[in-house]
Amino acid sequence: MKVIVNGLDLSSAVLTVSKAISSKTTNPVLEGIKIKASGDNLILTATDTELTIEKTINADVLMEGETVVTGRIFSEFIKKLETEQIELSKLDGEKLKIKYSDSESEMQVFPAEEFPKIIKDADDSYFELKQADFKKMVEKTVYACATDDSRPILKGCLFEIENNALTVVALDGFRMSVLSSEVLSSSGNFKAIVPARTLLEITRLISNENELIKIKVSKNALLVEVDNTVLISRLIEGEFIKYRQILPTEFITNVRVNKNLFISSIERASVVAKSDKTNVVKLDIKEDFINVTAKSEIGNVNENIAVNMDGKDIVIAFNGKYLLDYLKSCEDEFVSINLNSPIEPCVISSIVNSDYTYLIVPIRINS
Amino acid sequence: MKVIVNGLDLSSAVLTVSKAISSKTTNPVLEGIKIKASGDNLILTATDTELTIEKTINADVLMEGETVVTGRIFSEFIKKLETEQIELSKLDGEKLKIKYSDSESEMQVFPAEEFPKIIKDADDSYFELKQADFKKMVEKTVYACATDDSRPILKGCLFEIENNALTVVALDGFRMSVLSSEVLSSSGNFKAIVPARTLLEITRLISNENELIKIKVSKNALLVEVDNTVLISRLIEGEFIKYRQILPTEFITNVRVNKNLFISSIERASVVAKSDKTNVVKLDIKEDFINVTAKSEIGNVNENIAVNMDGKDIVIAFNGKYLLDYLKSCEDEFVSINLNSPIEPCVISSIVNSDYTYLIVPIRINS
Repeated sequence: MKVIVNGLDLSSAVLTVSKAISSKTTNPVLEGIKIKASGDNLILTATDTELTIEKTINADVLMEGETVVTGRIFSEFIKKLETEQIELSKLDGEKLKIKYSDSESEMQVFPAEEFPKIIKDADDSYFELKQADFKKMVEKTVYACATDDSRPILKGCLFEIENNALTVVALDGFRMSVLSSEVLSSSGNFKAIVPARTLLEITRLISNENELIKIKVSKNALLVEVDNTVLISRLIEGEFIKYRQILPTEFITNVRVNKNLFISSIERASVVAKSDKTNVVKLDIKEDFINVTAKSEIGNVNENIAVNMDGKDIVIAFNGKYLLDYLKSCEDEFVSINLNSPIEPCVISSIVNSDYTYLIVPIRINS
Repeated sequence: MKVIVNGLDLSSAVLTVSKAISSKTTNPVLEGIKIKASGDNLILTATDTELTIEKTINADVLMEGETVVTGRIFSEFIKKLETEQIELSKLDGEKLKIKYSDSESEMQVFPAEEFPKIIKDADDSYFELKQADFKKMVEKTVYACATDDSRPILKGCLFEIENNALTVVALDGFRMSVLSSEVLSSSGNFKAIVPARTLLEITRLISNENELIKIKVSKNALLVEVDNTVLISRLIEGEFIKYRQILPTEFITNVRVNKNLFISSIERASVVAKSDKTNVVKLDIKEDFINVTAKSEIGNVNENIAVNMDGKDIVIAFNGKYLLDYLKSCEDEFVSINLNSPIEPCVISSIVNSDYTYLIVPIRINS
């Protein structure tokens, strides 16, 4: 292999693919970046076997070939050569030679054969929407994914395409976020459960929010291409929770509250409440106001927020963090809170955009 | 105590004094902030017994008094009340009441009597210079202070005032940084060893770099006042190393090198070298160039930098980090490196501003 490449291009490509480098692995080749000189391109690939990122940049290829460098070291080294033209060369049985100015350094490599084979067969189904819309749908749901490993299926978001409408669902057993939106095109009705980490990496790749993004899905994998970068991810296998059955549709009490006032109040209550692990914030909902209270050994908070309420008075308690997660990701000025009893799930939605719904399970308290 | 205070003023004051809150203590009152309503002021104080920060803000005092709140909790809570007028009140045997809008919360407190007495007697000697100059003198020396506890005297900078000139010295046994500058006024010749942490906190207090700062020093303590904030710190007791005796004055080899080229080269060498703890970067200094090399199991770096050299060729090795610390804090385009032998300390200075000098002990290598 022998190739001449612009230092800034290389450094930026290394940074992009590095996101897929495995951080916890017993197989050192998974800490590597494969570099392959072919045609007029240098192709960089990193994978942790779940998630793969591949980036292609222009290069002056003098001799085709491939090798695997240690990701972290190579990335750090190349970052300090952004202003140089770099010649990378590798002969059989030798280290990778890196030439720049009148200097020459060498890096240890792994044989390219040891690097996992990447299969790009995710072409069965697809949907397409604006990058900005995709990003928004991820950001408004992914926070509700489970972070522990006890139920792997909850570590991803359900993507459900039905009649050109996309619904994204995430839940962790304590709360659930559901968001629907039209897509610009799709290959028909299908479902896929996409790991939370994959979704976050895709949103990081998004560079021009006005352009389109096409998500291709096969039985086991997802593939997306943005700016000469290809991201491939395994899907989570199994049957997702039947989320429609969980969402109650009739309510006894409905409250409309100013979102920012509600956020500030719950944040202050949480300062006191979160010294306990459950972060219990109690809401005493009456006709004209919510009395927000929290109590722990460090102090107590007692606030009133003006609201509009229909239905029956109710006293109910939640984990303050779960309330804040939804409220902070909601863009509207007012939210609508729908309740039945202190032990039944509550459903919050924005008043303007009712396509964004949040279910939250209360904490039982002795009141 | 009963006092009405602006939320933003209070939040900003709490943030300022919080820097002196003890993070590792078995005495919970040292995690607190004392708040004292007196005259037209609210005075906030935090201390870890080594460093004390006290901030005075305007307040509408309805009843004088004092109490101690838990620093971290109070700070977090008040930060979320920046837009409010806040009433703080405390009656004997009760919690601190915090009133805002039509809400009322309470915080646990400690008795003010348990808070350490702060003594402000640092009035014997002083020096005065521009805030920007003080900041620069600290930043160019403090990085060379020792960070471990084996020799407490090395955890601070020596401040030596002689004939209206201030010399600041820091050393850790491997390298030493020395910087001299005129001061605008001083009370005469004196010395003090100021803890590194104190110096960093003083530079953080600096708000208007064009204004003056007056550092007052007594036998055991330092006192400085900036913007209604008083910082008091213990000095480090003992006799500092006689730094003038360590600095060689005659050299066999002198090299002038472009600072930025030298930094880039040592940074790349360090990527490879720092996988070993000693971070050995070897310099082979010849008439027209320095050959910079580093080697470890991950690879090797081999670079040439053009230089001007007088004297004898020399091969010498350093910890790359120690070279970078000086080079990065130096403002000039070229630096002058003065050497005698591969086992004797090397002295680096900037060519334009010779008042900033750095001594660095080489690493012995088999070459």
